[in-house]
Amino acid sequence: MSEVHAARRSRLRARCASAGGTALVVSRPANVRYLAGAAPSGAVLLVGHGGEDVLLCLRDPAADADGPPVGADDGLRVTALDGAGAGDGDPARAAVDLARKAGAESVAVEEHHLTVARHRALTAAAPGVRFTDLGCAVEHQRLVKDEDEIAALRVAAEITDRALGELLESILVGRTERHLALELERRLIDHGADGPAFPTSVATGSHSGLAGHRPTDRRVEEGDFLTVRLGARFRGYRCQIGRTFVIGASPADWQIELYELVFSAQRAAREALAPGTECRAVDAAARGVLEAAGHAQSLGPVTGRGVGLEIGEDPRLSPAAMGKLGACVPVTVEPGVHLPGRGGVRIDDTLVVRSPADGGPELLTITTKELLAL
Amino acid sequence: MSEVHAARRSRLRARCASAGGTALVVSRPANVRYLAGAAPSGAVLLVGHGGEDVLLCLRDPAADADGPPVGADDGLRVTALDGAGAGDGDPARAAVDLARKAGAESVAVEEHHLTVARHRALTAAAPGVRFTDLGCAVEHQRLVKDEDEIAALRVAAEITDRALGELLESILVGRTERHLALELERRLIDHGADGPAFPTSVATGSHSGLAGHRPTDRRVEEGDFLTVRLGARFRGYRCQIGRTFVIGASPADWQIELYELVFSAQRAAREALAPGTECRAVDAAARGVLEAAGHAQSLGPVTGRGVGLEIGEDPRLSPAAMGKLGACVPVTVEPGVHLPGRGGVRIDDTLVVRSPADGGPELLTITTKELLAL
Repeated sequence: MSEVHAARRSRLRARCASAGGTALVVSRPANVRYLAGAAPSGAVLLVGHGGEDVLLCLRDPAADADGPPVGADDGLRVTALDGAGAGDGDPARAAVDLARKAGAESVAVEEHHLTVARHRALTAAAPGVRFTDLGCAVEHQRLVKDEDEIAALRVAAEITDRALGELLESILVGRTERHLALELERRLIDHGADGPAFPTSVATGSHSGLAGHRPTDRRVEEGDFLTVRLGARFRGYRCQIGRTFVIGASPADWQIELYELVFSAQRAAREALAPGTECRAVDAAARGVLEAAGHAQSLGPVTGRGVGLEIGEDPRLSPAAMGKLGACVPVTVEPGVHLPGRGGVRIDDTLVVRSPADGGPELLTITTKELLAL
Repeated sequence: MSEVHAARRSRLRARCASAGGTALVVSRPANVRYLAGAAPSGAVLLVGHGGEDVLLCLRDPAADADGPPVGADDGLRVTALDGAGAGDGDPARAAVDLARKAGAESVAVEEHHLTVARHRALTAAAPGVRFTDLGCAVEHQRLVKDEDEIAALRVAAEITDRALGELLESILVGRTERHLALELERRLIDHGADGPAFPTSVATGSHSGLAGHRPTDRRVEEGDFLTVRLGARFRGYRCQIGRTFVIGASPADWQIELYELVFSAQRAAREALAPGTECRAVDAAARGVLEAAGHAQSLGPVTGRGVGLEIGEDPRLSPAAMGKLGACVPVTVEPGVHLPGRGGVRIDDTLVVRSPADGGPELLTITTKELLAL
């Protein structure tokens, strides 16, 4: 793994190279992780213009290690700011100092991450340095996953499917959304996840189908639609699954009809995934099905999003999206419909875009999408 | 409660008033919550210069409500950005637009929250408006808690003490740090917490005593020091407790000695809490005890921090802190010592600063600090 991180930093350096020598200061946590491996909270990575890379931590990471500190095995220098005295220091400022001493003419920072106040403190402390914007260069590089990253996502998906499957075998009626969410998160960890990929959502009855629903004390009742959205985090990689069930012996007609509609929309989007396809075309595939049935408003701004070290990475599968999909890009396809006061349906999968020659999109989240009555 | 939020906004408006009329755009989530009540993720609050306040949400909050939307009962207007088409919109931009239309000459924003990129987009879209920095005006106002806030903290502390107490009655040997942390968080919710106040830390054996330790799969063994740090979140208010135990029949001499040292340091800091006392004096009380025993480096940059809607609010009890304590300011006192390779001790309490006439500091986290062998 160590050569992987060094190779990623080299590639980034090459893509951002300029005539005078630009050092890069990476501060967004997922980007630091991608380029340096798991790092302590608040760590900042300097990708030096001449190839000397340094990870600057707030505290000494070796103090909390069962093994060698992050980076030690791939030539990445790891340093900590001073102890108690300089505890208020900003590792980004130390990074700029190092870059300046190494002769960098300019420093590129992540203006979509640093606050105005933090950025101002950096520039004030380094008046001779030209500051530029790194933009989303690291996010762009993270778009296409290598086979180890996809392998981690596969494990995350297996853990997620198992946790969900176990829950479906238990009694649900009478339990609260909050307890079911907790139970799911416990099972994710039991089956090997670092933790949940995002806060687990469990929504029953008139809450079902809501996109960002936070679990409440509402109890599951017979006849309810129950929507569940969860995901495991494994080696930092995050997947997502969403499923909708009916509680009790048999679904009502309106429930069957709504479920089939969302299923069709989700299938249309899944089947549209291919290298070279426009992101907005995937969104349009789902959106068109829902619009034809009068449910355009329900869908929300996106049909799906990229996953990796973060949930909700690039690409965005939305009407305004400008890019195209590529092979080995993992995405969610997560449409849904919510009828206020009644409930609704959400069906989310995580898939890896692959060419037709390679079998088409690889479905990671394999829990059945048949409407189950539990 | 509704009058409370309106009153807070009025007080903020008065403190930030300027001759020409400055509108305030509040974006930090805890600050939005303090001024408007629980709001959807990403919501931005406009505190208008003329008294017209508006909460701008990404999506329609009424779609996810079991009751009236936040703010409806105290005259706070709540609006959502358009649905699918404007899904990429920034509520802060909508806030600036409204302020401009209402005749504000300048807009104060939270430069310690907005990213450089986001701030640039705001200023570019409103070229005739003068942008200033609100700074930490809301955080400053949040420092002294009213009796309802302290009551919420008391409940959070009771929940936390109960969850910890129950765990201590169960078998610990052989269980992993991760499972114990999960168990504690489940019990917090069982006893009425919204959720944990922060990620629960459980550290055993050579991990014990580390300040920011994330639970691993290490199992608790006889003879271990076991340090636990957790807290409940209740109505948004967060408390913190930390305790250290010895696993097995009787502690070793070095464990007793280290525990008594940290206990003395923590007690010295607790006893230094009083209205008018300098924050750095409280830190010095703990730091002095540890320095005399040769453990200065272990303490870290702070002895304690404020709590409320956030863990780690102002004030900071650190050597460089410039302010003084006031009555009704809740803080943690959380010193510790970690001996690399051996383990260590942390003892954390949450207390409310009160004058001697009112009984001195009010201890919220009442689980015993006697060294227990479990």
